Amino acid sequence: MKMLLVFAHPEHQSFNGAMFQTAVDTLTAAGHEVATSDLYSMQFDPVSGRHNFLTLKNPDYFKQQLEEMHATETFGFAEDIEREMKKLEWCDLMIWQFPLWWFALPGILKGWVDRVFAMGRTYGGDRLYANGVFTGRRAMLSLTTGGPQQAYGKGGFNGDIHAILRPIHRGILQFVGFDVLQPHIVYGPVRLDQEQRTVLLAAYGSRLKHIGDERPFDVGIY
Amino acid sequence: MKMLLVFAHPEHQSFNGAMFQTAVDTLTAAGHEVATSDLYSMQFDPVSGRHNFLTLKNPDYFKQQLEEMHATETFGFAEDIEREMKKLEWCDLMIWQFPLWWFALPGILKGWVDRVFAMGRTYGGDRLYANGVFTGRRAMLSLTTGGPQQAYGKGGFNGDIHAILRPIHRGILQFVGFDVLQPHIVYGPVRLDQEQRTVLLAAYGSRLKHIGDERPFDVGIY
Repeated sequence: MKMLLVFAHPEHQSFNGAMFQTAVDTLTAAGHEVATSDLYSMQFDPVSGRHNFLTLKNPDYFKQQLEEMHATETFGFAEDIEREMKKLEWCDLMIWQFPLWWFALPGILKGWVDRVFAMGRTYGGDRLYANGVFTGRRAMLSLTTGGPQQAYGKGGFNGDIHAILRPIHRGILQFVGFDVLQPHIVYGPVRLDQEQRTVLLAAYGSRLKHIGDERPFDVGIY
Repeated sequence: MKMLLVFAHPEHQSFNGAMFQTAVDTLTAAGHEVATSDLYSMQFDPVSGRHNFLTLKNPDYFKQQLEEMHATETFGFAEDIEREMKKLEWCDLMIWQFPLWWFALPGILKGWVDRVFAMGRTYGGDRLYANGVFTGRRAMLSLTTGGPQQAYGKGGFNGDIHAILRPIHRGILQFVGFDVLQPHIVYGPVRLDQEQRTVLLAAYGSRLKHIGDERPFDVGIY
């Protein structure tokens, strides 16, 4: 299968970095084709705006979605965006590796979505959700949290982790048609010792060996 | 009162721009002190990392939260971060004006949070939620959506808007101690004509005239 790994963490030596490397190594060893977007190493610019486009249809009044539709027709996306779109369109399964910062994606990854998921090219008209452009493909979030697992239960300190992730699962991934796999969550790696981390990385590798066989999960209705 | 308005949209002529300007004008006319962070005009860098700090405690292994605590003790935040922190600490009431992109904050605003809301300075230890640094202050989200209101009801196409906003309300604002006011939401301004927009801007202005008297709302438990 064709696998796209998107990685958003400023330190490769972090536990997130180790999870990303585990995914690269395991999926490659299993015979998959692997592409990566290591956003910090790429120095990806996450600010969405006029520079998303080679030329503007209306330089005097910037309407991003109109420019996106225009760029879709005229092959007018900036090179850094076009390259990411091609990876997205190429993959069968996409994994995002990131730390949950403020109950959400890190800014660099959120801005990757803002810029790359363009109207016309990745969604639009009735090509949404079950009719989405990426129907039949799968995506999974692989993340770490700061807090311990008990803080993320229903009615807990922070609230249900699935409610926290739902805007990403529903509002980004399913919105453009991806089937969503159960997220892979490591709670509070900052409080784990090296042995515990090794065990968790091995468990992640084991899951990834058979990720191609996994079925989507129900992200819930709210 | 001291009001901080944070604005995240690439086009000042947009409806978001008009809402931001309405807030600046209305709150100033009502006698409040008004500070702004117009993130696109400031070309704010939303990528959180080593450059958040003047010097690093450990340049060989970047751990953001440890560096944040170190910078808190040594006045070591980069100038662009320190300036935003000072505004945050100054205000009695903060309003964020933004378009809801992908069920979430635009990348530039998410990255502003990632960088400015630093451990040690804005939260940490048991200074969270009801014991947060910003206890007694208030915050409000003012946003626009792409879809119509009926898409954002419970069990609707996109799901309950309050569930979508909850990671922001709970995971960012309440997390550091802010009391959260009912969000101000304009659904699908792209489909409104000029007269409808004028009415909605006037309604927003009316609300803002008395915003200092508003009480917090219940962001819900999940």
